Amino acid sequence: MRYFMTFAYDGSKYKGYQKQPKGKTVQNEIEKALTTINGGEAVSIHASGRTDAGVHALNQKAHFDLDMKHITPEKLKDGLNSLIPKDIYIKHIEIVPDDFHARYNAKAKEYIYKINMGEYDPIEKDYVYQYNKKLDVAEIERALKYLEGTHNFKSFTKGDEDKEDYTRTIVQTNLIRNMKTLNKITLSFLGTGFMRYMVRNMVGTLIEIGEGKRKSEEIIDIIKAEDRTKAGKTANPEGLYLKDVLY
Amino acid sequence: MRYFMTFAYDGSKYKGYQKQPKGKTVQNEIEKALTTINGGEAVSIHASGRTDAGVHALNQKAHFDLDMKHITPEKLKDGLNSLIPKDIYIKHIEIVPDDFHARYNAKAKEYIYKINMGEYDPIEKDYVYQYNKKLDVAEIERALKYLEGTHNFKSFTKGDEDKEDYTRTIVQTNLIRNMKTLNKITLSFLGTGFMRYMVRNMVGTLIEIGEGKRKSEEIIDIIKAEDRTKAGKTANPEGLYLKDVLY
Repeated sequence: MRYFMTFAYDGSKYKGYQKQPKGKTVQNEIEKALTTINGGEAVSIHASGRTDAGVHALNQKAHFDLDMKHITPEKLKDGLNSLIPKDIYIKHIEIVPDDFHARYNAKAKEYIYKINMGEYDPIEKDYVYQYNKKLDVAEIERALKYLEGTHNFKSFTKGDEDKEDYTRTIVQTNLIRNMKTLNKITLSFLGTGFMRYMVRNMVGTLIEIGEGKRKSEEIIDIIKAEDRTKAGKTANPEGLYLKDVLY
Repeated sequence: MRYFMTFAYDGSKYKGYQKQPKGKTVQNEIEKALTTINGGEAVSIHASGRTDAGVHALNQKAHFDLDMKHITPEKLKDGLNSLIPKDIYIKHIEIVPDDFHARYNAKAKEYIYKINMGEYDPIEKDYVYQYNKKLDVAEIERALKYLEGTHNFKSFTKGDEDKEDYTRTIVQTNLIRNMKTLNKITLSFLGTGFMRYMVRNMVGTLIEIGEGKRKSEEIIDIIKAEDRTKAGKTANPEGLYLKDVLY
């Protein structure tokens, strides 16, 4: 039987989502718990994609196969939650057709990135990027619009990445300003797919635009260049959240 | 010279504010850094009061004596922040008269308590009490009003506390509901002074009222009883924040 689950996690104590031989990862923790439920026989989970160390997820998705006809998905969810660390939470489990794949069937993903332009906040240090200076928010908002559409995003990928196709579509971007403090902004990116470091490289470039080091229109040239060195720095992981995966 | 500082901290990794022979505390960390700045000679800080393990502070206040005429309070603040862990942050330092005392001169304190009535949130598990069920918010709001005023709060203190005077004044209370989710509420308490566990014992009682186990008017009887066993459980520390100290 194939199960499909939605889960959230605080990435601050993990070396990323994906299983690694060394270091605590989200996948490791969930697979360990599932293996226990499965009487010691290994269970592998297949997520919509990885998230890097320090990055959070509000609604990550994964599928796995398990022969558990005697327990309902709801009971399986409760059992799993009782076995995994408290900074991961399984929100929902359902049964899906055997050919459903959490990664290949994903149609779009939404990421958000939180930036604090106000005073350093020790309580949110692992959850909001502490930029702690003013940014030109209107200029960032203009730049965001140049990222929308179908482009070759090679300039925004991990430098040593070697892919056949760097074309992705960013369907929608948004900038939301917290109206209570005005000092916090959240950038959102809805797209058909994101390559490794792509969101953080876009955000790093947007921050340099907000600092006045670049103009918003430079986004056009950076995309055209298809060259990682033309874009800005990789923004810190702690501001990034995988918000949703659409199927 | 007497310095007076405002600081914030994430209490989740500390055994409370107050210095202890064993275990990491906020006071220990700041005193260690000040002692380093003072060339190895011990410096003691005197806060407005303690906070317990897991409790946070947005604007805790403390004074300390130091002979540092050659550096400005602003430079001292930067130096301190560079030496303390990143989950504590000194927001402001100023020079005050030698007879100023952060504890004795405090006129009022404000505490807030955050409760999540919605789904468990692994990202906020150390920052918002995960109650994760609906509460009767209107009944809690009514109960809050019975706490306002000058009362003997013995029923809400730590059971084994032996004080001469349990009379305190709660000047104002509030219940703020997050209008975006409706599932998060913040209770606030502004008062002339709070005894140990007092806010958490009031919140624990308010939660039982919100669960329908008690009526809001029972607050009157609980106060009258002057008996810890008449009030509710002590609410978890992670929802509690020392928001401000007024002088």
